[in-house]
Amino acid sequence: MKRLFVDVGPVEKKHLDAARTRLDELTKPRGSLGRLEDVAARLFAMGAGRFPLVVEPAVMLVAAGDHGVAAQGVSPAPQTVTRQMVRNFLNGGAAINAFCRSAGMALLVVDAGCAGGAFEKHPLLLDRRLGDGTSDISLGPAMPRELCLRGIEAGIAIAGNCAAQGYRCIGTGEMGIANSTVAAALYCALLGIEPEAVVGPGAGADEAMQRRKVEVVRRALQANAGQARGDDPVGVLAALGGFEIALLCGIALGGAAERLPVLTDGFICGAACAAALRICPDAAGYVIFAHASAEPGHRTVLQKFVPGRTPLLDLGMRLGEGTGAAAAYPLVRCAAAMYNETATFDSAGVVM
Amino acid sequence: MKRLFVDVGPVEKKHLDAARTRLDELTKPRGSLGRLEDVAARLFAMGAGRFPLVVEPAVMLVAAGDHGVAAQGVSPAPQTVTRQMVRNFLNGGAAINAFCRSAGMALLVVDAGCAGGAFEKHPLLLDRRLGDGTSDISLGPAMPRELCLRGIEAGIAIAGNCAAQGYRCIGTGEMGIANSTVAAALYCALLGIEPEAVVGPGAGADEAMQRRKVEVVRRALQANAGQARGDDPVGVLAALGGFEIALLCGIALGGAAERLPVLTDGFICGAACAAALRICPDAAGYVIFAHASAEPGHRTVLQKFVPGRTPLLDLGMRLGEGTGAAAAYPLVRCAAAMYNETATFDSAGVVM
Repeated sequence: MKRLFVDVGPVEKKHLDAARTRLDELTKPRGSLGRLEDVAARLFAMGAGRFPLVVEPAVMLVAAGDHGVAAQGVSPAPQTVTRQMVRNFLNGGAAINAFCRSAGMALLVVDAGCAGGAFEKHPLLLDRRLGDGTSDISLGPAMPRELCLRGIEAGIAIAGNCAAQGYRCIGTGEMGIANSTVAAALYCALLGIEPEAVVGPGAGADEAMQRRKVEVVRRALQANAGQARGDDPVGVLAALGGFEIALLCGIALGGAAERLPVLTDGFICGAACAAALRICPDAAGYVIFAHASAEPGHRTVLQKFVPGRTPLLDLGMRLGEGTGAAAAYPLVRCAAAMYNETATFDSAGVVM
Repeated sequence: MKRLFVDVGPVEKKHLDAARTRLDELTKPRGSLGRLEDVAARLFAMGAGRFPLVVEPAVMLVAAGDHGVAAQGVSPAPQTVTRQMVRNFLNGGAAINAFCRSAGMALLVVDAGCAGGAFEKHPLLLDRRLGDGTSDISLGPAMPRELCLRGIEAGIAIAGNCAAQGYRCIGTGEMGIANSTVAAALYCALLGIEPEAVVGPGAGADEAMQRRKVEVVRRALQANAGQARGDDPVGVLAALGGFEIALLCGIALGGAAERLPVLTDGFICGAACAAALRICPDAAGYVIFAHASAEPGHRTVLQKFVPGRTPLLDLGMRLGEGTGAAAAYPLVRCAAAMYNETATFDSAGVVM
């Protein structure tokens, strides 16, 4: 199945070990840079031993799409907000724009299928529309399987284009009213979790709305029980996913195929990533989890699908758009700089 | 007592409230940027309501000094390493150099009193030597009270000079073999903690050495019982502190007096900060705690001296030098950019 999409080479233990050896020669107590040392070692392995580590320039890919399930009243914001926020991204006015400028990341917005038709052309916009919003997952599949495959392949191609343009790190972000409901449904189907354990407030659902989200997710799982089986991640994505999530799944796979670090945002991008890792487990070596979302189910699902991997940041953020990934990117850059530039005990004449 | 040193204006609730009002008008769900919103609000209050928030350029001040108590065998590294690492800083080869380059911070090294005499002149070096290493705190006071006051005042002056040169954010860092023992003793005296609760491995002490550290701290507290009373922070610093720690205490006070954010590194800089806040509680409004150190006592002491304040990062780091502060600086810059640049619902035409 994985060969259908993309060829991902695993990161190798010999490179991780070689990186650890170098890290222990640098002028600092062993292991004293904690998780930044882990990041540096993994960057070295992602590059198959290439030195120096290069993670600049970086690009943030924000995929946007609409969701039929928004009609079930699962978000405090109306569906029109997806479209308004895409315009905000293109105008440079959203939080993710400020975050990317601050972190030194380029930004591209991918219209994966916002309701209301295609946007006017814009230099920051990639039109990869799969439709005018998905169908309502609480009634049946979000999209046909072939459309989902097209979305994944489009994501793979975008990551490939980014690599060809010289980007050395990819951040992921998303926008789509109701997509925390969709992400919850995906986690349930992919990881065998109950809706109660993974449904949260998203963009600000109150308790009554959260109870409705749980019910909607339960109905979606029932309505798609035939197609959304955990051993068929593409089937799950097509049944319970979203256009932007299919794209983001492909971006994770394509980034891994290019041996680039894929800095993965929070709860929604995590669901796309979970599907990608089910399609191709070796892609896990290229994923860096940027932050622990304030969405209460996020830690639970990370423990399930990537046990032992802790996100870099834990700042109570729950905005999405890629803000967690952009906030974490300077730490990745820092880890690379530390690995590349710190003197060894020998070269510095430090005798511990 | 505080007037003796420096005039720190408190951050005001009205500015924090005004910042919250603006944050809630920005195009994002309310509160969805978590602790970055807290940072932005505090930056606004630090500047007494000045807009836009400006935290660039930033400077990292790494203070170095030696400690007589190193003779008690409390560190796996010999005292000569302090001096060797200062040269490493000046040559640009230490981890903190890589971190500062990556984060876009300038770096200055303050020789507060390394053993072995003054260094040759260097453009990155400030000579503020208080002596050739402190006396052994396990036998008596580290330094006379007047010398400690001179160190604090030198730190205040350095922060003032940085502000005059246009720096808008100060990071703190340190180097000094045995200074995790000294910091533990300071926390015990300032906060009424038992040595066992706050002594840790520092740069890599094994269990036997940690037991010795506990004993040495206990003896230091006994030997200085008359002078190191929690209600006299200058007395505590003189008895149980270090030259670099006196400087860093002054830098925290001076930064606060200049209304600049003081991005405080981990366990050692935290001890200097604890003394500063005991001297001038209003300085707390200007301190941003960069990271939770892997040194096990760090969380305990932060809970004691600044309850409710959580460091930005938690990456298992325990190197010192200011690496935690430099790693966290991009988050401060990001919070400021978000606050300054994100569109409001009105201006972006987003209707939630």
